[in-house]
Amino acid sequence: MNTPHDFTRVRHWLTDLQDRICTAIAAADGQARFHEDAWQRAPDDPSPLRGGGRTRILRDGAVFEQAGIGFSDVSGEQLPPSATANRPELAGAAWRAIGVSLVFHPRNPYVPTTHANVRHLQAEKDGETVAWWFGGGFDLTPFYPFDDDVHHWHRVARDLCEPYGGQARYDAHKRWCDEYFYLKHRAETRGVGGLFFDDLHTQFEDDFGYLRAVGDGFLDAYLPIVERRRDTPFGEREREFQLYRRGRYVEFNLVYDRGTHFGLQSGGRAESILMSMPPRVRWEYGYTPEAGSDEARLIDYLTPRDWL
Amino acid sequence: MNTPHDFTRVRHWLTDLQDRICTAIAAADGQARFHEDAWQRAPDDPSPLRGGGRTRILRDGAVFEQAGIGFSDVSGEQLPPSATANRPELAGAAWRAIGVSLVFHPRNPYVPTTHANVRHLQAEKDGETVAWWFGGGFDLTPFYPFDDDVHHWHRVARDLCEPYGGQARYDAHKRWCDEYFYLKHRAETRGVGGLFFDDLHTQFEDDFGYLRAVGDGFLDAYLPIVERRRDTPFGEREREFQLYRRGRYVEFNLVYDRGTHFGLQSGGRAESILMSMPPRVRWEYGYTPEAGSDEARLIDYLTPRDWL
Repeated sequence: MNTPHDFTRVRHWLTDLQDRICTAIAAADGQARFHEDAWQRAPDDPSPLRGGGRTRILRDGAVFEQAGIGFSDVSGEQLPPSATANRPELAGAAWRAIGVSLVFHPRNPYVPTTHANVRHLQAEKDGETVAWWFGGGFDLTPFYPFDDDVHHWHRVARDLCEPYGGQARYDAHKRWCDEYFYLKHRAETRGVGGLFFDDLHTQFEDDFGYLRAVGDGFLDAYLPIVERRRDTPFGEREREFQLYRRGRYVEFNLVYDRGTHFGLQSGGRAESILMSMPPRVRWEYGYTPEAGSDEARLIDYLTPRDWL
Repeated sequence: MNTPHDFTRVRHWLTDLQDRICTAIAAADGQARFHEDAWQRAPDDPSPLRGGGRTRILRDGAVFEQAGIGFSDVSGEQLPPSATANRPELAGAAWRAIGVSLVFHPRNPYVPTTHANVRHLQAEKDGETVAWWFGGGFDLTPFYPFDDDVHHWHRVARDLCEPYGGQARYDAHKRWCDEYFYLKHRAETRGVGGLFFDDLHTQFEDDFGYLRAVGDGFLDAYLPIVERRRDTPFGEREREFQLYRRGRYVEFNLVYDRGTHFGLQSGGRAESILMSMPPRVRWEYGYTPEAGSDEARLIDYLTPRDWL
């Protein structure tokens, strides 16, 4: 079982992670800076949620059209049914969740969109911690994919799993990612995947170590791709394709994403949850890329594949 | 109970309604025309849905940035649990649904977005019709609202209810509309409402008469507003506000709309269902209109109100 001290350690690591990612992303951007909204639920807020967070957004940068990264520490009086379906003994327990979540929307269509999340949850009954678990992962959504980038992304994911079960861990969480980020109505994955896990509770130090490896590994996975593609020339055509594909991102997040649904339905802070929405998007009825075009290549990357 | 002949009459009225609305909207636009995709499920399609439809889209018009109107006639082997929660006797019944659904996204931000739908459903067991019902309505989503427009809209709604229960019918279906088109996470209605109803099955001729009144009334309600506002001058500021507010439309349709969810989850034709998506949209973290501005006026219209 974990202790209040453990929870504080995770919280400290999360806020520090948010700081480090902001510093690195602002440096990579070179033009815009993050602005922070620190928020806190009022004690008389009608929502049953308590807690607060710090939402940070960088906008209109040289590299990032929008980069949002939020830390939150919220608690509720009762775990929702979706969270206790597999663990009936937790029904009715109070909960506390801390996490960092980010979505970056680059300007250049050759730079992929990305998402990462690391979170820690605790369930409490009568003031005692009765369960804890970790969840998280990171995934990549290119518009014009390059095999080198996808290989690099999955190589970092595979390597960080090494001390935590190695290939078997990577295989399991890579598959989970492919399954989770799937748009059934389009018969497409959201992107080329990465890692996804939930409900991880084997041994606290091991699991927290893996969470740190995922959180710390994110920049190693993403920044080299940004550096490689940020100056690729593009025009109206590539921009329009990017806006169109961002529509799929919206469809996934609003139709399927359990975190988004849980957040919105439980009275979470809508602006913080929906900072994942792209700044500009378009839909076009019946669009299909011309056969053989650069845009037509993408669809081949939206079926799960072994990348290593 | 209705008969196969009744079903055919409704179907005929629906396809004719689609034709008439297309003619009127193309005439109002004056520049662009509707293009039709007639589609039909192949007998070996892996989805359990059968049937087809005709999806019509007008794009890049003088008045309408996009106007989509679809007729569909689809059937399935089993009513979904959501459709039989209140009627356990229908569990497991086969079903057939015919309907017309439209969403128009005007170019000028002073012209409201609108949605209308009229539908007829039948449940069958052992080849016998065991239940039928009607559903539908229309609702208006202004960006820069005018009281005159909203009064006119609701006046048409009220008047068409006259032979079908009068004020009581209008009150009930107006309230249903306000409740249905509600974004809980924003604490806003989608727009200024109109009429919404489902599961209507009192007496077939009466109910079909009301459905016709709603479908035929739509153009009477909408076109005068289009004519009044189509030439209002606007600039970048109004356009940006329109794109921003379209984000709310996307949020409603993808997070809450039962028709959209049912369609996507049951293997419906994604392009036809998602023709409701605006052609261009934007999100902006933390945006609130300046106090006293024209944009700040809108929020007062997004709480249910008696308009007549």
